[in-house]
Amino acid sequence: MAPQLSFQLVSFLLLLAGTSVAATYPKTAGLGIVRRSMISGYDVDLPPEFVTYYYTQTLDHFNYKPESYTTFEQRYIVNSRYWGGPNASSPIFVFTGHEADITGVLSIAGFVVELASHFQALLVYIEHRYYGDSMPFGSEYEAFQNASTLGFFSSTHALADYAQLITDLKRNLSAENCPTIAVGGSYGGMLASWFRLKYPHISCGALASSAPILYFDDITPQNGYPVVVTKDFRDTSESCYNTIRQSWSEIDRVAAEPNVLSKLSQIFATCLPLNSSEELKSNLEVLYWVSAQYDNPPDNPVENLCNAINGAAEGTDILGKVAAGLNGSIGPPCHHMFDLKPSNKDGWTWQTCTEMVMPIGNGDNDTMFQPSPFDLNNFTRTCEGLFGVTPRPHWITTEFGGHEIKSVLGNFASNIIFSNGLRDPYSAGGVLQNISDTVVAAYTEKGAHCLDLLTPMASDPDWLVSQRDTEIKIIQGWIAEYRATRAG
Amino acid sequence: MAPQLSFQLVSFLLLLAGTSVAATYPKTAGLGIVRRSMISGYDVDLPPEFVTYYYTQTLDHFNYKPESYTTFEQRYIVNSRYWGGPNASSPIFVFTGHEADITGVLSIAGFVVELASHFQALLVYIEHRYYGDSMPFGSEYEAFQNASTLGFFSSTHALADYAQLITDLKRNLSAENCPTIAVGGSYGGMLASWFRLKYPHISCGALASSAPILYFDDITPQNGYPVVVTKDFRDTSESCYNTIRQSWSEIDRVAAEPNVLSKLSQIFATCLPLNSSEELKSNLEVLYWVSAQYDNPPDNPVENLCNAINGAAEGTDILGKVAAGLNGSIGPPCHHMFDLKPSNKDGWTWQTCTEMVMPIGNGDNDTMFQPSPFDLNNFTRTCEGLFGVTPRPHWITTEFGGHEIKSVLGNFASNIIFSNGLRDPYSAGGVLQNISDTVVAAYTEKGAHCLDLLTPMASDPDWLVSQRDTEIKIIQGWIAEYRATRAG
Repeated sequence: MAPQLSFQLVSFLLLLAGTSVAATYPKTAGLGIVRRSMISGYDVDLPPEFVTYYYTQTLDHFNYKPESYTTFEQRYIVNSRYWGGPNASSPIFVFTGHEADITGVLSIAGFVVELASHFQALLVYIEHRYYGDSMPFGSEYEAFQNASTLGFFSSTHALADYAQLITDLKRNLSAENCPTIAVGGSYGGMLASWFRLKYPHISCGALASSAPILYFDDITPQNGYPVVVTKDFRDTSESCYNTIRQSWSEIDRVAAEPNVLSKLSQIFATCLPLNSSEELKSNLEVLYWVSAQYDNPPDNPVENLCNAINGAAEGTDILGKVAAGLNGSIGPPCHHMFDLKPSNKDGWTWQTCTEMVMPIGNGDNDTMFQPSPFDLNNFTRTCEGLFGVTPRPHWITTEFGGHEIKSVLGNFASNIIFSNGLRDPYSAGGVLQNISDTVVAAYTEKGAHCLDLLTPMASDPDWLVSQRDTEIKIIQGWIAEYRATRAG
Repeated sequence: MAPQLSFQLVSFLLLLAGTSVAATYPKTAGLGIVRRSMISGYDVDLPPEFVTYYYTQTLDHFNYKPESYTTFEQRYIVNSRYWGGPNASSPIFVFTGHEADITGVLSIAGFVVELASHFQALLVYIEHRYYGDSMPFGSEYEAFQNASTLGFFSSTHALADYAQLITDLKRNLSAENCPTIAVGGSYGGMLASWFRLKYPHISCGALASSAPILYFDDITPQNGYPVVVTKDFRDTSESCYNTIRQSWSEIDRVAAEPNVLSKLSQIFATCLPLNSSEELKSNLEVLYWVSAQYDNPPDNPVENLCNAINGAAEGTDILGKVAAGLNGSIGPPCHHMFDLKPSNKDGWTWQTCTEMVMPIGNGDNDTMFQPSPFDLNNFTRTCEGLFGVTPRPHWITTEFGGHEIKSVLGNFASNIIFSNGLRDPYSAGGVLQNISDTVVAAYTEKGAHCLDLLTPMASDPDWLVSQRDTEIKIIQGWIAEYRATRAG
């Protein structure tokens, strides 16, 4: 049985980094525990222009029960180095935090700093509730006790947090007349676009990078994600694709032999003995997903991986080739296998178990993976076991829409950029066509997940530079329009 | 001291009726108890084309605590008499229930039936949670126990109720391709417009009648409402206005004499002896408010009232004139005084005590009433005493906007009609200018509260017929646009 795709895939949303798979895979491919270690890794001293604040946030925006009036301290980080100030009506860029410690984005998502510099803007990074240091009930330990303490952990609350914090912050800064633009990536990109849709009075535009807002309900085919992974590999190398495609049944065939785990452990140079062949397959599958999701220059992880597979010594069998691929991606001396079981101490797992139900699955023969359709019943049972909650698979489309988005938003809404890289498997659930003159798609053929948000580098290819220039030009228009309508 | 304006005024939102003050005042001018008797009055057998259903609704849409999964039975009423059905993509008009038993609107708001007939549409009236028969926890008694049971009673939940119910209903009717238009009046009109803004994927347009969405925070001057009341009276009769304006100090002067309540009771022909002169003043003030709010033809209550005041026998003193006005409006033989104290068993009082904080007050010499500025501290203390909750006076503008609405929505949103009658004091907080080509204001100089929604009659003046024709024409455009974008 393949790993539980929907839990695992979505957990990658937290990866904003586009650095090489070799660097990120060991830290990020797993779930809760792995992630937290990654978060700790981010938690370094901030550069002096980034100042940390805490906002006393309403726990429950939509109810008025006595407990709803409880508050928690929400972290936000401000960079005012470039800001022209309220008298100049200089813009404010709000980074709508995603499912991670907010400090993690500071060193990675450098494009927002470039935006701030270009527009003399204030930068405000807001941490999403229940991540990082923004824990209700005083601590992560308390917040993750059970469904009663986790119960306030939802996307609508996150958006309302942003609304309330920004409104108060602008008032305190006398910056009510400063155009405010939401920026986010992945789940944070969904939040940025939803924020513009739900709170147009607070945000005059949104840059939503790699936001798969259409990967809910039946809008996007379930195999959208693995089909793109497969395409990335097949476009890179037909033989590499064939090797991977054949490897699963080969692992199954070998695994059917008695006492074979030590042999598999040896072939794949695992640091610890494998517990099962499923453990191996899950880890390999995740490696391919991550490689595709971050298949960006200059590292080009899919090409690296395929080069390693294809470059195995002549006569190497399929398992040997796949093992060579693993080694080529992760490097020697040995390979840690990650525990990919969902955890009830993981925030994103909670979110997928409640409302962020992205039905991602492999069909028969439509990908290079073994069949593993999304099974809502299984998924529900798992969530009930983990948290005692039942997922609401239709809630996101009820609350935020998604069906027939071009018709719905064609004459409603404005000023949203949906940016994508088509190598990113999540682009399958992204907005890839212009919805109107001002709700537009900006994608690159060769980019992957959240690439445009990363810190610009001299080595960036022209198509990436061009994508970012397009975004700046569009945002320039929003700001000009904002000023024109306020002046008029 | 004048009555607590903000509690009382908003309670009138529930009045959709445009029938004469003589008919409605005794039933509706008060708060909780009075209202419930009115509701009971509505609760008659429905005509056969109106069929009642109950939807199992989620209690808490935005949280995922164990109790959030509790459900309640939400009442909705369907009239399918005119519907062309899903194959014809015939429209659906959804009446977004306001702060009242939903059955009350059926016999009054006949314009929606005309809309259904004109457009071969399905009519769905959805009752607002915590009103009428749509009580969480099984009964009104249980629902109104305390802030814990009332805590789920908010406008955002009401909107999410509508979203979920409509989405499910359309799926069940295979009516996903039927354009759906929200219609509501007063608070229900606010909900209709907010529903279009927040759920454009569910509603392709909204007719928001007499919706004072700008009567929050500091957007509209606090005295907006009483200033319009005053203008209505002064425009009708300068001497009537002067009599009323002078009457308050005259009552105070008389009331300062010893043992005067029996004398006042006699002058004003109260059915029971007055408890205080404040009781008299409050009831008179409310009478003037209601008369202005429903100052429509053919009854023209302000003119009636002023005729009675001005027609008092020569030599009648000020109190006698005002008493003649009361008698002219309410009729003999005696006049009930209503207990205008806010009640913790009243739904709208809960809503004003939590989020629907409309800061309405009289300033000095700017109205025909005594000064009575809105006092948030007082208001807060009252709410804390009633329910143990603290109002959130900035929440509505944070969640729904309102400031700079023309700039904010000028290039965002579409297909909303804000209809008003300028004699309605609530029009002071309404949208009275076109925001864009498709978010438009349609008002009449001579109409009052929710007049356009009332059942059309042969005696309707031309300007009212014209207002409704304009609305039909605009809605026709929405439906055509909807079909064009879906066909394309």
